[in-house]
Amino acid sequence: MSQIKVNTDLKALNNEIAAQNKEKLHSCGILTVDVLGSPGSGKTTLLENILPELAAKCRVAVIEGDLATENDARRIEKTGVKAVQINTNGGCHLDAKMIERQFEKIDLENTDVLVIENVGNLVCPVSFALGEDLRIVVLSTAEGEDKPLKYPTAMLKTDAVVVSKTDIAEYVCVSTDKLIGNIGTVNPDVKIFTAGKTDGEYRAEGLVEYILEARKNLK
Amino acid sequence: MSQIKVNTDLKALNNEIAAQNKEKLHSCGILTVDVLGSPGSGKTTLLENILPELAAKCRVAVIEGDLATENDARRIEKTGVKAVQINTNGGCHLDAKMIERQFEKIDLENTDVLVIENVGNLVCPVSFALGEDLRIVVLSTAEGEDKPLKYPTAMLKTDAVVVSKTDIAEYVCVSTDKLIGNIGTVNPDVKIFTAGKTDGEYRAEGLVEYILEARKNLK
Repeated sequence: MSQIKVNTDLKALNNEIAAQNKEKLHSCGILTVDVLGSPGSGKTTLLENILPELAAKCRVAVIEGDLATENDARRIEKTGVKAVQINTNGGCHLDAKMIERQFEKIDLENTDVLVIENVGNLVCPVSFALGEDLRIVVLSTAEGEDKPLKYPTAMLKTDAVVVSKTDIAEYVCVSTDKLIGNIGTVNPDVKIFTAGKTDGEYRAEGLVEYILEARKNLK
Repeated sequence: MSQIKVNTDLKALNNEIAAQNKEKLHSCGILTVDVLGSPGSGKTTLLENILPELAAKCRVAVIEGDLATENDARRIEKTGVKAVQINTNGGCHLDAKMIERQFEKIDLENTDVLVIENVGNLVCPVSFALGEDLRIVVLSTAEGEDKPLKYPTAMLKTDAVVVSKTDIAEYVCVSTDKLIGNIGTVNPDVKIFTAGKTDGEYRAEGLVEYILEARKNLK
């Protein structure tokens, strides 16, 4: 029983800091997006591809979360968007305090959208609020059609799911339609996008508009 | 500081139960293998493919760990091997106590190798001993070449890594050699296997022999 109590207290403390983060970010007019998913689900690739379009329409900053390396922040900065890297040193998720510590490294007064890429993990990040307005789960076709059923919490506690790597679905014997159907079975209200290469060009139809619309509604 | 203390105590308690599990399993002559990796890395597919050969050479039982559904135990039982399912109901890893609770459901006296498929997660299961003799991490080419560097703990705290889905490496623009090189950079001592379809047939060269050899050395 003591384990449950401790977890509850830690999560309550995290929620408190997350609420403070949200208040601070809203006071600067910033929409915050938490992007999460399994290792290799295609989170960084998605960001590399949507950031140029998003950054052309508003001012964006990125926080990258990883157990180790600064590789992802470097990849993001190649798009021209400023990125700061958090290393959790083995930790399985970002928490609100880690985000709060980055605020001094980001020009909050000149940011409209803050994108946080969480640690690659389809389980733990779901339970830790960061102060985000939107949560987007990235789920690749390579993970298999059954994953929405096997990881229901991630499907339920998100605003949107991006089904990524649609271009390799046939090589991994996955039906993107069936995968999308399984997401809808678990959460009929979630917004679903697809992302992948079509004729050699990466597309994530409607995602940038979805984020911009949420930013507009924040005002 | 109190958080660290609590985690330490919980892990110490888990290690104690894991040691009891190991003693119990060894007293029955059972080699225990903990298979872990990200969601969709191909753990169940690997087991479906190696279990018929393994079960032809020794008596095998399987414990399947998932947040939800009994799908994987059903998939395993189609190979003719008995499987019991643990649902963690959202929990991010199996622990030693969960394994201990399954002992009454398994014919331990008539088992040589117990295979445990952990919850799909490349982070948390690494920190929780179950009583295993061997740990095998499954890492798919679809997760990307950089994952050994970004998830070093999983590479360091394992006996073997199976690089899976080698047949789709070219479609996800991944070099299997480079991926294997990155595993070796993090842990030069780890045993590395590959798994995937060659000419339409799934192969995981040497893996069954590796497990049988470990079982032989247990005696």
